[in-house]
Amino acid sequence: MSMTVLDQKDFLNTTAQVDEAAVKPLPNSRKIYVSGSRSDIQVPMREISQTDTAANMGAEKNPPIYVYDTSGPYTDTTMKIDIRCGLPVLRDNWIDERGDTEVLSGPVSDYGQKRQADPGLAKMRFNLKRQPRRGKAGMNVTQMHYARRGIITPEMEFIAIRENQHYEALNHKLLAHQHPGQDFGASLPKQITPEFVRDEVARGRAIIPANINHPESEPMIIGRNFLVKINANIGNSALGSSIQEEVEKMTWAIRWGGDTVMDLSTGKNIHETREWIIRNSPVPIGTVPIYQALEKVNGKAEELTWEIFRDTLIEQAEQGVDYFTIHAGVRLAYIPMTAKRMTGIVSRGGSIMAKWCLAHHEESFLYTHFEEICEIMKAYDVSFSLGDGLRPGSIYDANDEAQFAELKTLGELTQVAWKHDVQVMIEGPGHVPMHLIKENMDLQLKYCDEAPFYTLGPLTTDIAPGYDHITSAIGAAMIGWYGTAMLCYVTPKEHLGLPDKDDVKDGIITYKIAAHAADLAKGHPGAQIRDNALSKARFEFRWEDQFNLSLDPNKAQQFHDETLPQEGAKLAHFCSMCGPHFCSMKITQDVRDYAAKQGVSEDEALKQGMQQKSSEFVEKGAEIYSKL
Amino acid sequence: MSMTVLDQKDFLNTTAQVDEAAVKPLPNSRKIYVSGSRSDIQVPMREISQTDTAANMGAEKNPPIYVYDTSGPYTDTTMKIDIRCGLPVLRDNWIDERGDTEVLSGPVSDYGQKRQADPGLAKMRFNLKRQPRRGKAGMNVTQMHYARRGIITPEMEFIAIRENQHYEALNHKLLAHQHPGQDFGASLPKQITPEFVRDEVARGRAIIPANINHPESEPMIIGRNFLVKINANIGNSALGSSIQEEVEKMTWAIRWGGDTVMDLSTGKNIHETREWIIRNSPVPIGTVPIYQALEKVNGKAEELTWEIFRDTLIEQAEQGVDYFTIHAGVRLAYIPMTAKRMTGIVSRGGSIMAKWCLAHHEESFLYTHFEEICEIMKAYDVSFSLGDGLRPGSIYDANDEAQFAELKTLGELTQVAWKHDVQVMIEGPGHVPMHLIKENMDLQLKYCDEAPFYTLGPLTTDIAPGYDHITSAIGAAMIGWYGTAMLCYVTPKEHLGLPDKDDVKDGIITYKIAAHAADLAKGHPGAQIRDNALSKARFEFRWEDQFNLSLDPNKAQQFHDETLPQEGAKLAHFCSMCGPHFCSMKITQDVRDYAAKQGVSEDEALKQGMQQKSSEFVEKGAEIYSKL
Repeated sequence: MSMTVLDQKDFLNTTAQVDEAAVKPLPNSRKIYVSGSRSDIQVPMREISQTDTAANMGAEKNPPIYVYDTSGPYTDTTMKIDIRCGLPVLRDNWIDERGDTEVLSGPVSDYGQKRQADPGLAKMRFNLKRQPRRGKAGMNVTQMHYARRGIITPEMEFIAIRENQHYEALNHKLLAHQHPGQDFGASLPKQITPEFVRDEVARGRAIIPANINHPESEPMIIGRNFLVKINANIGNSALGSSIQEEVEKMTWAIRWGGDTVMDLSTGKNIHETREWIIRNSPVPIGTVPIYQALEKVNGKAEELTWEIFRDTLIEQAEQGVDYFTIHAGVRLAYIPMTAKRMTGIVSRGGSIMAKWCLAHHEESFLYTHFEEICEIMKAYDVSFSLGDGLRPGSIYDANDEAQFAELKTLGELTQVAWKHDVQVMIEGPGHVPMHLIKENMDLQLKYCDEAPFYTLGPLTTDIAPGYDHITSAIGAAMIGWYGTAMLCYVTPKEHLGLPDKDDVKDGIITYKIAAHAADLAKGHPGAQIRDNALSKARFEFRWEDQFNLSLDPNKAQQFHDETLPQEGAKLAHFCSMCGPHFCSMKITQDVRDYAAKQGVSEDEALKQGMQQKSSEFVEKGAEIYSKL
Repeated sequence: MSMTVLDQKDFLNTTAQVDEAAVKPLPNSRKIYVSGSRSDIQVPMREISQTDTAANMGAEKNPPIYVYDTSGPYTDTTMKIDIRCGLPVLRDNWIDERGDTEVLSGPVSDYGQKRQADPGLAKMRFNLKRQPRRGKAGMNVTQMHYARRGIITPEMEFIAIRENQHYEALNHKLLAHQHPGQDFGASLPKQITPEFVRDEVARGRAIIPANINHPESEPMIIGRNFLVKINANIGNSALGSSIQEEVEKMTWAIRWGGDTVMDLSTGKNIHETREWIIRNSPVPIGTVPIYQALEKVNGKAEELTWEIFRDTLIEQAEQGVDYFTIHAGVRLAYIPMTAKRMTGIVSRGGSIMAKWCLAHHEESFLYTHFEEICEIMKAYDVSFSLGDGLRPGSIYDANDEAQFAELKTLGELTQVAWKHDVQVMIEGPGHVPMHLIKENMDLQLKYCDEAPFYTLGPLTTDIAPGYDHITSAIGAAMIGWYGTAMLCYVTPKEHLGLPDKDDVKDGIITYKIAAHAADLAKGHPGAQIRDNALSKARFEFRWEDQFNLSLDPNKAQQFHDETLPQEGAKLAHFCSMCGPHFCSMKITQDVRDYAAKQGVSEDEALKQGMQQKSSEFVEKGAEIYSKL
């Protein structure tokens, strides 16, 4: 699409509406809420109901399966969704009752005031009726600060319930069975308690991104001892996309499982786009403030100043951004280390700061003003995502001096942030061959004292542009297993263009796979239930249940129906891969039935069962393909 | 598609033709041949030519890159392709001059004779003019037999040249750089010699699937000390697909990188479909003979006999099948071990044999007649692919007693086959969570004495039907790194339906990614060249080169053009992800240029360069986005 087309595209706050597809509940799923210790702690989950096992296979009632639900009110059929009003302010009362924040008379940031005063923006501006909050003078309002004072916040309790996913309710031996994991020194409890959440946050090993100006968000946690999370990047650029498209990408991303969303907009109306996204997002929103700061100086990195950046931080903190990527580890002295690289500096933020450092030949103002940044973060509870500005952009550059020099600095900055009780996670690579991935995790744990690691992939080869969701899912699954807390998705468009809605979905599903594979390998309690339930459905030819339990029911059903279109096919005891004569699943069902009947423990009983069965076979002429 | 539609679909040997898309050379690529010690050893490779680096980036001439080419004569513009004639018989003279084979007067198998005599098949039968070959009485014609007698065959020399991919010719320090790998005890030489190939085959650590009745095949090798290979499964079922479709899938699969193709047809005209595929395939073809044997008894497993199976082996060996999957490890005693599984026996061959064993309550005839099978294999040089009939079909069943009991038996059978100088590879799982994958590799190496491992995935989670190419690519990359020699692809349709051409391509590209990621991690010599070249092109904004060096140039270009359609965009110094102000690559190019100019080794020189550059920046107003 060309710029002119985009310019003509109108987005009006009077007509804005959510994408139909984003509010439809998934098949056989309903939103349930598990109550906490107080009536306003209602934790959303998705309940997937199952059909019964067929009579000839035991006529078993199959329990509903509960899965982590990031889609927020959008998939709650009892809610009326109107993006012009934004989402309900779930956390408003919790924040208010802590009594350590004040409601301002209006935006404090110069830029926020300027945008609000601009009549030209009236038609596209989100009509927010409330004013921004800020911590009272001298008050620290971070979840880490509460945690360290021994306070269990409603957010923490909400998270404990959410992470357990109701799995203790499951009373089914087969479905509950799970392989012991290999956790590389993580401390996964059998059950997540509110106290455990508090302790992990106090320890700095987990963060709860929860800006006091984003009360619409449903609390979630990022840490190696919790479910592995995924982030979806959206955002328009100077060359493409509109506010409507970005809001749609956000609702689409959370529908399929995005745990957080980063708005990386670099085009025009960044401020307004962000407002629409935050007001309608039930998941934490992250940004890279330096992108907008650069727009404010017309893209001239050398004209960036601490004052402009500072005002941008406040502007975005007042809007409710939950975490900021800040590339404070890109120090002047490290830039020469990138000179002999294959692909130099590939992080945008990193290269902007490198350019600034070179233009001024000074230390980065992000580094020199880091404590002042902490002061801003703790007044709104914005979490740090310390950016890896020197991450490798190619297999060639993996694990080099520049990358690890920066990582060490990020570890030092982590200690500074923790001194202020400000929450921190650390960003990681990038492009790394499989055998060099673990070193990244090991050094991050060491340098950053187990602060949550948040990695982009890593991509395990450079040779597949167009498929980098896959080259990176391989590395993401592995590093998630090793201890990474959140995986930043990569879409098929990586290196090639801006992702559209389909790319966003492909990226999300691919990363849900990587994150779940990591949870299984770590041995996260209950992680295997969904695999077990889907495999049991598959074995019992409960096709619909198999589709409904999958990450993408629509696609599973569509693929199946392409070859077996008739409804009846879903009830047939064979599938198109094998044809009637080849259904290994059905054959095995027989093998299993009588082995179980006789009790496999006693070999003799089994032998008899087998002899008996062999005669049955002959009598029946092995006609085992009867329909249900 | 329904059966009736397929029945009506006509396939005639008079009108059969190859798919247009399969014969078009890839952009900026040409087929080259590297000569061996004799004029008839001409090893095909794909040469990808590159453009020069832009003047403002150094005006460097970029060398052509050579990549492994499985597409055979189809992408050789000098060849005339007519699938009715089949491919040139590349190996015919090599086989003939060994003087240990005889040309028969016609098919020996009863079934082969029956099909040939059936006038109703005339219209669809491939018109083969030559008669099948067989080893002379008492002669062993396997590559392993030659290897053990110290003979280096032309096939072995061909393979040595092919595996090196011409990389020793590359004289470019940056592109030649590679990370040292982690090979878990593999023995990767710096360069592959014909003697090394012979030694690995003699040792049983690698196989060369090369039936004397498939002289059209271009020799390739499967072993842990060579490039990781991938297999593509095709084949029609009783419910779908036609001969034309299967031949198209084969040509499509090898175009994108399939190293071998398995024809798993279970529908009608299996014999004729196979003939068309083999005669037109430059890659080894594998089958699972028990599938066809079962068709011969109308799907009644209990009616299978050794005689029917034996005749099927001979029938297929005479056609030129290069390797047979034989589930001889499914022993009667192991079947009860599957009774408590979540998904029982999911291997079709495995469940057929389990059913036979139960119906007769006898030991499998594949196991009891194994030595007779070896006698057939060595008369045609058909390699064993010992099937894992008890592989896990769900995360729940991974690494259980049944699976490893069978693996141990496969190890014993390997020794029997080796006693006959018959080549063997071992099939592996399946569904396995990441942390249990290595145990599969370790036990296979131990039980099977390093015979090549050939795995299906493994899938690292069960919850993503529709995306199992991805759930499995994660496991495939890892097990390839650990030592697996060949990865059997999984398509997006796995568990749901028969793959169509698009699914075949998705499966192939995904598995090329997994195999290449494994080669990088193992440190296979030269493996990183393509990554380096593509990343250098990316860094220098040589978009076309970036596309051409990728696994799927068409998709890379298409994705790029969706957002930046104008030709000029490919020359612009920014891409749609970042917009003009954000091109980290370009910014870094500047950083790098002067650092290099001054020599980074001397920090002072660099500082000066940086100061100098900073003033330049101010003068130029950082206007660095000029077009080339």
